[in-house]
Amino acid sequence: MKVSPLAPKLYPELPPLTGVSLAAVEAGIKYVGRKDLCLIKFDKPAEIAGVFTTSKCPSAPVDWCRKHLAKGKANAIIVNSGNANAFTGKRGEESVALTAKATSAVLGCSPKTVFLASTGVIGEPLDTAGFEEKIRMAEAILSEQKWHEAAQAIMTTDTYPKLATRSFDVDGTTFTLNGIAKGSGMIAPDMATMLSFLVTDLPVDHKVLQKLLSRNTKSTFNAVTVDSDTSTSDTVLLASCGAGKKITEPNDKRLKSFKVALEEVMHELSMLLVRDGEGATKQVGITVSGAKTKRSAKRIAFAIANSPLVKTAIAGEDANWGRIVMAVGKAGEPADRDKLQIQFGDIIVAQNGERVPDYSEEDASRVMRQDEIEIAVDLGIGKGTAKVWTCDLTKEYVAINGDYRS
Amino acid sequence: MKVSPLAPKLYPELPPLTGVSLAAVEAGIKYVGRKDLCLIKFDKPAEIAGVFTTSKCPSAPVDWCRKHLAKGKANAIIVNSGNANAFTGKRGEESVALTAKATSAVLGCSPKTVFLASTGVIGEPLDTAGFEEKIRMAEAILSEQKWHEAAQAIMTTDTYPKLATRSFDVDGTTFTLNGIAKGSGMIAPDMATMLSFLVTDLPVDHKVLQKLLSRNTKSTFNAVTVDSDTSTSDTVLLASCGAGKKITEPNDKRLKSFKVALEEVMHELSMLLVRDGEGATKQVGITVSGAKTKRSAKRIAFAIANSPLVKTAIAGEDANWGRIVMAVGKAGEPADRDKLQIQFGDIIVAQNGERVPDYSEEDASRVMRQDEIEIAVDLGIGKGTAKVWTCDLTKEYVAINGDYRS
Repeated sequence: MKVSPLAPKLYPELPPLTGVSLAAVEAGIKYVGRKDLCLIKFDKPAEIAGVFTTSKCPSAPVDWCRKHLAKGKANAIIVNSGNANAFTGKRGEESVALTAKATSAVLGCSPKTVFLASTGVIGEPLDTAGFEEKIRMAEAILSEQKWHEAAQAIMTTDTYPKLATRSFDVDGTTFTLNGIAKGSGMIAPDMATMLSFLVTDLPVDHKVLQKLLSRNTKSTFNAVTVDSDTSTSDTVLLASCGAGKKITEPNDKRLKSFKVALEEVMHELSMLLVRDGEGATKQVGITVSGAKTKRSAKRIAFAIANSPLVKTAIAGEDANWGRIVMAVGKAGEPADRDKLQIQFGDIIVAQNGERVPDYSEEDASRVMRQDEIEIAVDLGIGKGTAKVWTCDLTKEYVAINGDYRS
Repeated sequence: MKVSPLAPKLYPELPPLTGVSLAAVEAGIKYVGRKDLCLIKFDKPAEIAGVFTTSKCPSAPVDWCRKHLAKGKANAIIVNSGNANAFTGKRGEESVALTAKATSAVLGCSPKTVFLASTGVIGEPLDTAGFEEKIRMAEAILSEQKWHEAAQAIMTTDTYPKLATRSFDVDGTTFTLNGIAKGSGMIAPDMATMLSFLVTDLPVDHKVLQKLLSRNTKSTFNAVTVDSDTSTSDTVLLASCGAGKKITEPNDKRLKSFKVALEEVMHELSMLLVRDGEGATKQVGITVSGAKTKRSAKRIAFAIANSPLVKTAIAGEDANWGRIVMAVGKAGEPADRDKLQIQFGDIIVAQNGERVPDYSEEDASRVMRQDEIEIAVDLGIGKGTAKVWTCDLTKEYVAINGDYRS
């Protein structure tokens, strides 16, 4: 598989966080000759929060995480790639329980504090027979340095690992937030899904983590789309392994710099997802303003971002704003054709329900040839604003998802 | 452009209907060397009904038709291809009014009884300067025989003309329903859109026509999708040019055979749309049963039909039922993973939340290699049922919509 043309030129080094160590091993789940099982271990029970897929057919690991999240304590996160353990019936539940039990046996903790995520093929039973041995092997090589290896082990159709980090200052002490993610179709159930794991050493209570994670997910992981298809397995976990007294108030002033770091890391990882979208050659930001409500703006933005005709036009570097009009119209949200303004980059192409008189195809084309394209739509009927991100739709996407027999 | 592999082997001959004549001329709107302006003239005012796009940014001709439909009388339908006259502001309204006026001048009727449809590029002003002359040329060659020519003149990215006809018996007299349609992306605003014009010689009041047209549209034209993109211009018109006393009651027994004919013609035209879907190599029927409600069933069916991952799997002849599970899950409608049953053709692949024990990849593959594929999903939680149709998503779709600069 060739690496996305939008892959980062440099990968950040994630600094070690005291109290959290990582390891990746080859469990031979599906891939040959690569690590596919990742263990993240907390020395002391970490505070943990999570956001999961909205799918009505979630995977067994998602069910497990939801069930055990209420107490907000984690001793470990165990992730496998190559098999999603989704739509696997009773056997799916059993293999989740067995994996948690195996991990807890190795680490000496309760299975209920082991969180799981799986990504890969749907419907294939996940054979966990050898897992305890593999987890024991992972435990033996745990290290605070292995963020990059962990990010690689959770990959499926991803063409590069996804990592981000920020340091931030609280009352004169420097803390860190590290994050890894995977995903390249919003879902390709044979392979992809979106997973992310974030850990900070700032001591924060899980209820506060949950609040911040849920809020930021809306404008980051839930504001990106590759192909409009939602995985059965999407999972984002945010943990705090910080020692000392926990911050328990969401409005605590000490959280200020952490909130900025969290927003930045989640945004950066989301952009890495879009830029590794299956077959992607362009990163596309879509801003909708002047809508009736924020919700309405987001729906219109996603109608544009998910339109095959908009996405193929972008792949063809075609400033086809007629397709934007079409997508606004199909969203079913309040819109007034005669107030619509459409912009590619800094070029206004349409205004007041028609093409601008001095429209220059050449200027618009210049914008479309760039790697990163900003589309702005103003509806002129309210104050609702939203931004989402997507990539283009290329023949390569069809090839990745159609050119093989499972 | 190469003709769809799913094109019909034979085209039906549409019999002449007394009281309606057709003509097509070259107006040079966009295409060179082909007819792009179609006139349908009724000798006496016909009864007329219509269904239009749900787009919030409809084209100027759609606005015009909606405005004048209340009276239900038509002397003519005038259709152009090559320019959608959508998002053209005040000038769009003017060119619609001018076209209606020109037609009425030639035919000697009120402009309000002239119905219009346009399909083609969005945002380009439609130059109607020469229209009156062209309409006069069309009027001079009107003929009851020219259904095939009319069907060709309204084409855009269509690779073949779409025609259907049925004869039916009412109280010992034979009547006819003729229909033509165009469309190959649900929309490709540079080119496509879905239009259909249906005429019967059975004398039926426009209010009854409207009722029957609206009802049947749900299960035919509004139950097919190529790319999930809704045109600004979709228009279906149903006219009756029948002489004699009109049928004014929707439950009149004399309508029985007409209702069957209408359903059949609309279904046939819808299938011709799907089979000419941009880049299509497969016709796919998706039946969802056992949903909470009919509406819920239809939403799930469309979530499957519009999923890029389902459609690329079908293009790859891959019985990837995991992607069906994903699409059911993402629809957001009530569903119980552990009651789901999924079937390709007559092969049950998954049941009770997991793959069937005797699943045979080979049997499933045999189904996937066919031109016409039936997918059935039973949710097992209610009585709601719906059926929709789509085509596969191929590299050819991306090529048609991305491989050019407008």
